[in-house]
Amino acid sequence: MSPLTDVRALVFDVFGTVVDWRTGVARSATRLLGDRVDAERFADDWRGRYAPSMEEVRSGRRPFVPLDVLHRESVDDVLAAHGAADVPAAVRDELVLAWHRLDPWPDVVDGLRRLSARFVLAPLSNGGVALQVALARRSGLPWDAVLGAEVVGAYKPDAAVYDSAPRLLALDPAQVLMVAAHDSDLAAARERGLSTAYVHRPAEFGGRSIPPATDPAADLSVTSFTELADRLGAA
Amino acid sequence: MSPLTDVRALVFDVFGTVVDWRTGVARSATRLLGDRVDAERFADDWRGRYAPSMEEVRSGRRPFVPLDVLHRESVDDVLAAHGAADVPAAVRDELVLAWHRLDPWPDVVDGLRRLSARFVLAPLSNGGVALQVALARRSGLPWDAVLGAEVVGAYKPDAAVYDSAPRLLALDPAQVLMVAAHDSDLAAARERGLSTAYVHRPAEFGGRSIPPATDPAADLSVTSFTELADRLGAA
Repeated sequence: MSPLTDVRALVFDVFGTVVDWRTGVARSATRLLGDRVDAERFADDWRGRYAPSMEEVRSGRRPFVPLDVLHRESVDDVLAAHGAADVPAAVRDELVLAWHRLDPWPDVVDGLRRLSARFVLAPLSNGGVALQVALARRSGLPWDAVLGAEVVGAYKPDAAVYDSAPRLLALDPAQVLMVAAHDSDLAAARERGLSTAYVHRPAEFGGRSIPPATDPAADLSVTSFTELADRLGAA
Repeated sequence: MSPLTDVRALVFDVFGTVVDWRTGVARSATRLLGDRVDAERFADDWRGRYAPSMEEVRSGRRPFVPLDVLHRESVDDVLAAHGAADVPAAVRDELVLAWHRLDPWPDVVDGLRRLSARFVLAPLSNGGVALQVALARRSGLPWDAVLGAEVVGAYKPDAAVYDSAPRLLALDPAQVLMVAAHDSDLAAARERGLSTAYVHRPAEFGGRSIPPATDPAADLSVTSFTELADRLGAA
């Protein structure tokens, strides 16, 4: 008997795992900035500021603020680096909402619908609640609840974020399966007793770097949410 | 122009407003205890311990624990008062789950589906996250997120609970409409700047006491969620 037979809930990393942030952010950059920036490089550079900006919170150097606030700050640096330092504040505010308007990978909606019939589903992302609600309403993601960084006031890989999922869902840690396209996220989840499933998302970085095909440390490695539904017996 | 034209999200009290706790708890009591108790009196007495048990947390006399924990404690007193002090622990645990298995009032699912097309919807209840997820999955309540006491670590009418709704949804307080069948809940929400809608639920207490037909202090008083959808222009 595989331990995964006890799983009752699935929690998901979102940026890269559920949605294609690079294409979506580049699309908004093109819409709002025209040819003033190379849209895909702009998306990559902005995403590059993600970890350092959260590290300020994780280290305790500043109190928790939602990801939208960090994005609003980091977009100033990215615009300056791309020679677009004169972009008006209202456009910068609108650029932040690019992260609320990302499309899921093609397998996601079908896979989640099938999984939803059998499991409780929730995002466990560093993106905030309003952002997750916007993504879900845009694409029909059938979340049962929105968990993650803002609910806890801490960013992954802080243990508090992973611990919050079984606590708020009233389950044992192993009954919660963390699904992510990043092995570091899964390693941190496993450290807190969660079950783990790796999803291979080769296009996340637009081919600039290809993540490994599988994560040998995970309970399961798949290439899509529909394969995940198959493997978990969710018709 | 009514201020309600700015409303973007609706947050709901749940026990009594969305679901009929009395009939549901009485049903589980009959299933689990047979004729050992008068099931409706049992439900009323258990509910009667609700406010005092939360007051222990609200007053700071004990740290926050989810409502399931308070229900598990208070059921012991209720069973003893009903001459059923010998009920085994496993049955008491199961009785607590009666609060996860309540049915919505007949207008709720249709009303929420219509409202969902236009507004972000979330429970803002003293019930915990797992309880809200169970109620929603049982009846198909289309919540976009689960907000409320457990997310904040405080019980209504603590201001922190009401404040959490606009904060987590990234809205102004007046853009959030609190919907409840209890004028005291709405008064506390209004104190924090939320818009308010009163729903008349004459059967909540099984006719033992009938709440007022309207709340003159609310922005809106309705008799059903479908009337609420009508009044808010949600087709």
